[in-house]
This record gives sequence, structure tokens and C-alpha cells, in this order.
Amino acid sequence: MTAPGALMAAEIVEQPDVWRRLLSEGRAQFDAVADGIAAYDPSMILFVARGTSDHAALYGKYLTEIIGRRPAGLVSPSTMTAYGARPNLNRVLMVGVSQSGGSPDLVQSLEVAREQGALTLAITNQPGSPLAEAAELEIDVMAGRERAVAATKSYTAQLLALFLIIDRLRGGDGSAAQPLPALAEQLIAGDDRVRELAQRYRFVSRLVTTARGYSYATAREAALKLMETSYLGAQAFSGADLLHGPLAMIDPQVPVFTVVGDGVCGEAMQQVLPRLAEVGADVFCVGSPAAVRAATVGVALPAGASEELSPLLEIIPFQQLALHLAVARGGDPDAPRGLKKITETL
Amino acid sequence: MTAPGALMAAEIVEQPDVWRRLLSEGRAQFDAVADGIAAYDPSMILFVARGTSDHAALYGKYLTEIIGRRPAGLVSPSTMTAYGARPNLNRVLMVGVSQSGGSPDLVQSLEVAREQGALTLAITNQPGSPLAEAAELEIDVMAGRERAVAATKSYTAQLLALFLIIDRLRGGDGSAAQPLPALAEQLIAGDDRVRELAQRYRFVSRLVTTARGYSYATAREAALKLMETSYLGAQAFSGADLLHGPLAMIDPQVPVFTVVGDGVCGEAMQQVLPRLAEVGADVFCVGSPAAVRAATVGVALPAGASEELSPLLEIIPFQQLALHLAVARGGDPDAPRGLKKITETL
Repeated sequence: MTAPGALMAAEIVEQPDVWRRLLSEGRAQFDAVADGIAAYDPSMILFVARGTSDHAALYGKYLTEIIGRRPAGLVSPSTMTAYGARPNLNRVLMVGVSQSGGSPDLVQSLEVAREQGALTLAITNQPGSPLAEAAELEIDVMAGRERAVAATKSYTAQLLALFLIIDRLRGGDGSAAQPLPALAEQLIAGDDRVRELAQRYRFVSRLVTTARGYSYATAREAALKLMETSYLGAQAFSGADLLHGPLAMIDPQVPVFTVVGDGVCGEAMQQVLPRLAEVGADVFCVGSPAAVRAATVGVALPAGASEELSPLLEIIPFQQLALHLAVARGGDPDAPRGLKKITETL
Repeated sequence: MTAPGALMAAEIVEQPDVWRRLLSEGRAQFDAVADGIAAYDPSMILFVARGTSDHAALYGKYLTEIIGRRPAGLVSPSTMTAYGARPNLNRVLMVGVSQSGGSPDLVQSLEVAREQGALTLAITNQPGSPLAEAAELEIDVMAGRERAVAATKSYTAQLLALFLIIDRLRGGDGSAAQPLPALAEQLIAGDDRVRELAQRYRFVSRLVTTARGYSYATAREAALKLMETSYLGAQAFSGADLLHGPLAMIDPQVPVFTVVGDGVCGEAMQQVLPRLAEVGADVFCVGSPAAVRAATVGVALPAGASEELSPLLEIIPFQQLALHLAVARGGDPDAPRGLKKITETL
């Protein structure tokens, strides 16, 4: 019997090494996948995923639209499973993202997509999994066995894999990702400070996360991490959608967790932050030193990552926060109530 | 000065007449739009929207995938506005959905899409709005001026317009929608019962909504309606995603609002309901009489609508619930704190 959260803590710390492995030993996989995609020349990319992996897929959607210069979408698996939809998928690349590669609805979605003319790619942490077997192309994110129910290292490995694939589509060589492991180590070294900050939220019953652009994936994943480990209500909104309604339910008793970097996402959040201040919101910020100073509390990101890669770094303080908050509230993030590591949905 | 919620109440009641108008006087618009789409023959359909209209777009995405037999996606406006993304959109139909047709990010998204080769369609409640001007094709949902900040009649009019467009793509004539106004009147007549049920949630601080398939749009819109009028935390999940993590934060103090109809969506929810029972969840159900009997409380839907049209009916009890709950909690759903009717995001 390990201490509550010991597995999750260890897996958070492993992340820089997981990324190094994917950037070195994992490299050859991306050549094969890039060749397959280039030969097929997709006119659009669709993603299919659930849970944490769906947040990686959301990041992949932004990457596709912005640097991949192709339209992208997130497929609802139920359309092809429960409803039996058979869309025409010629020139569509369908990407399934899953830690375990084992959920039957994702496997069936890739099988149907392949029958309907799509090129299929599985991104999993489990070579030989049913999802990998169902797809024509495969990426193993090489995160090693993940034992905590709350996914951490498999998520950031999925983000890195998606970047490396889509960066190739624009002729990149992935070198922009090289500085990331060392930058992540700086964040991981700040764990004690996050443990202290977590005490501030000991008695919170609900909170909001918000960001824009690439960082919206971070807001979604941060909310899920906090919900599944600390049993609180955590709602994620794009900064723009927040202003279209949900702002009404924020008051000083509902803390807001935000990501405000130096780039376009951070700039776009400048429309949102004054509205949060007007309603007296308590703001926890992960982002640039200036944005953290302007917030109630926060964690500054080290400089040196391009904006499109910053989601790999931004999520780390939220992983640490979810871990420490769960433990402070008497939970065990390695085995949250009601959940199993592999969720099989139909 | 009217009573709190008087505008919203009146607009809920207007819905059957709005739909009748769109099905009769509005009919000719759909001929022109269907001809334009058929001539262009899109290989996929993308939707761009915010807030309530984004839930209509989500319904449009399911319709496109299932009965339109084409891939579909929801675009994040920020990629084409803040990030300046310029994806290749040949053979893409880009649909902007907006009550006011006035949000600058949506207008710019359609302008960029048109430059990038897409066919553009605006669905608004405001003929001559900037969004309608930016698009090649236009549908006026003819809901009449909507004065309550919490949108109701414009939402269901958007759903109906989307159905009528996508039904044409499969050769339909929209006649499946004819029974809807009379069915909606039956639900509207049940308003007193919903007012009583609303008292049950007088002191709730957070709740969860969940459904699958077409009804997932209803779960999303119900959550937004409750958040923006009653200032509580309301989180929507697809039934499948709920099992991938968020289930951990449900306990007997977090009521669950669900939609369980007779069709495929309702069948797919049968995997979720036993898990909710295990954690002792209090369940409010809108759906088939059998599903309502199996829940803690609920509202039965009248029979007679096809599954793909049921979202127009399902949302009505949630609109009524949001109205009565807001009033019971001392709010005014016609003018929630912190919100304006037209939200301009960049």
C-alpha cells in the first residue's frame, strides 16, 4: 500500500524523460507515419477520443487548423457506433487517441472510418492494442505503464506526438520540442510551492477553468484532473464562451483557474480578465510572469517554449495542484472513487 | 418594469408559433439554400458559433454526420481570428449560427472561410446582420425579437432551421417536423408541474447534465440555461465521457439532469444510468414515460416526434426549469447579472 497519490506524483515527475524518449528512440515512428499521411494527402483531419485523450485531440485540432492548414473536427463516437452513421470519408485522416487503446467505441469508430475511405492512425500508449490493430498507421507514445487512474504522463506524451506529426505536415523536423524536457524539470522542481497554493482551495466546492486557443485544451484537462481527483465541480470554458453566459455564475466564492501566456492565446485573454476582476473573481494563473503578478496567485512558466508547444508545460502545475488538493481533501488520486483505469464505453 | 422572468416565460410559450412560421412562411428560404448547397456539393460541413448557438451547431454536427452522411466539425473561431489560420476550405460548407448575427469573431470567421474557398451560410434571427451580409447564403429563423437575455425561442428555431437544411440534403421535404408545434404545446401546458419540481433544487450549488447523441446538445443547452439564470455550477457531459472521469465527483448532493428518449440516444444511456444509481445520484429525467418512472423525478415527452427532432421538445422542460428555479432563487432570467443580450467577442 503506497501513500495516496504516490503513483500520480511519480508519473508527473517522469514526464521529461518520457518526452526525451519519444524525441530520440521514438523518432523513427514519425517518419513512417508522415510518409503515410503525405502519400494520402488528407483534405481534413478528424479526431476521435474520450476523457483526457479527448483534450489531447482538442490540442491536435488547433494544431491542424493553425499550423496544419487543414480543417479539423472532433468526432462524436456515438454517431458511428450507436447511430450507425456511414459518412463519406474520402481524403479524411481519422486519428484515434487513447491511452489504453482499449475502448470498444473508439475501435469501432476507426474500423468504420477505414471502411468509409479514411486513412486511420492510432495514437496509444499500448502497442498491439485493439485500437492500434484497427488502424493502418500507429504511434506508440512510449510513456511506459501508467498506473494512477488520473492520467498525466500519457497525456503530455500524446500532446508531443500530435505536435511531431502535424509539425511534419508543414515541413518541420520537431526540433522546436527539444527544449521542453529541461523546461518541464524547472516546473517540476516548483512542486512544494504548488502544494502550499493548493491549501487555498481546500474547501472549494466548485471552480472554473478558462483559457483560449491552444491553452483551451489545458483548461479542459485541468478541470477534468481536478474533478476526478478532488471530487469538486470544475467547469472549463473558452475565454470567449465564458462571456456568452457562464460569467453570470462566477462570484468571489468561485475561484477561476486560467492560463495566460505571452502569445496569441494570452493576448486574447486580455478581453476576459477585466470582466473577471469586475465580478470579484479569485484568479489562479499559470502563465507569463506579468500575468501571474496580475492574478491573485499563480505559477510562472519558464521562457523558451513556442506558443504551440506551451500546453505541454502549462498542464504540469495543474497536475501538481490536482494531486495536492486531492490529498489535502482526503482523497487518493491514484484510485479515485467510482473510476477504473480503462473505461470501456460502447 | 415587468416581473422577473416575464420576458423569458413569454418567449418559451411563443415557440410553437415560431416553428409554424418557419415551416410555412419560411419555407421558400430553404429551397434557395438547398439549391446553393447542392450546386456546391460540400464534402464536409463546419459550424462556427458561440454560447447557445454553439449548442444548435452541435445538433447540426450530429445531423450532418448521421443523416447528412458527411463529416462535420465545430470550428474554434480563434484559429481564424486571433491566430490568423488560413486553412484550405475547398468543398467545405461553413455555417455560422448566431441569434444576433453581430459577434465580430463569427463575422470574421465567415469572411476568412469565404476567402479560403468555402461556401458560407449564415443562420441568424436578424436579417441584414453583419453575419448575414458576410455569407453567400442566409436563413432567417424568424423567431421575432428576443428580449430575454437567456435565449429560448431563437435556439429552437435554429434547431429547426438546421434540421430543414440537412433533411433536404438527404432528399427530405421537412414534413417530419410538422407534428412538433402541437407536441410542444403539450409540454408548455405542463409548466405548473415544472414550477413545483423546480423547488426541489432551490438550494443546489452544482449539478450535472448528461445525455448522448442528438440529446447531448440538449444537455449542453440545459446546463447553460441553468448557469446563466440561476448562478449555479452546471456541467454537461456526454454519457460516455461522464464515465471517463467526472463520475467521481457525483454524490447524492449533486443532482443529475438527463435526457433518455425512446431511440438510440436513450438506449445508449442505459450504460450510464446504473452507474448513477450506484453512486446514489438524484436523477431528473426528461424522456420516455418508462425512463421518467425509473428516475427520481422528471417530465415525460409526448410521443410523435422522430428521434432526430426530439431535441426541439426536450429542451422545453429545461427552459421552464431554469426560469422557475432562477425566480425561486431571487434572480431575474430576463437580465442575469453580468450579461448582455449581444456578446461581442474578438
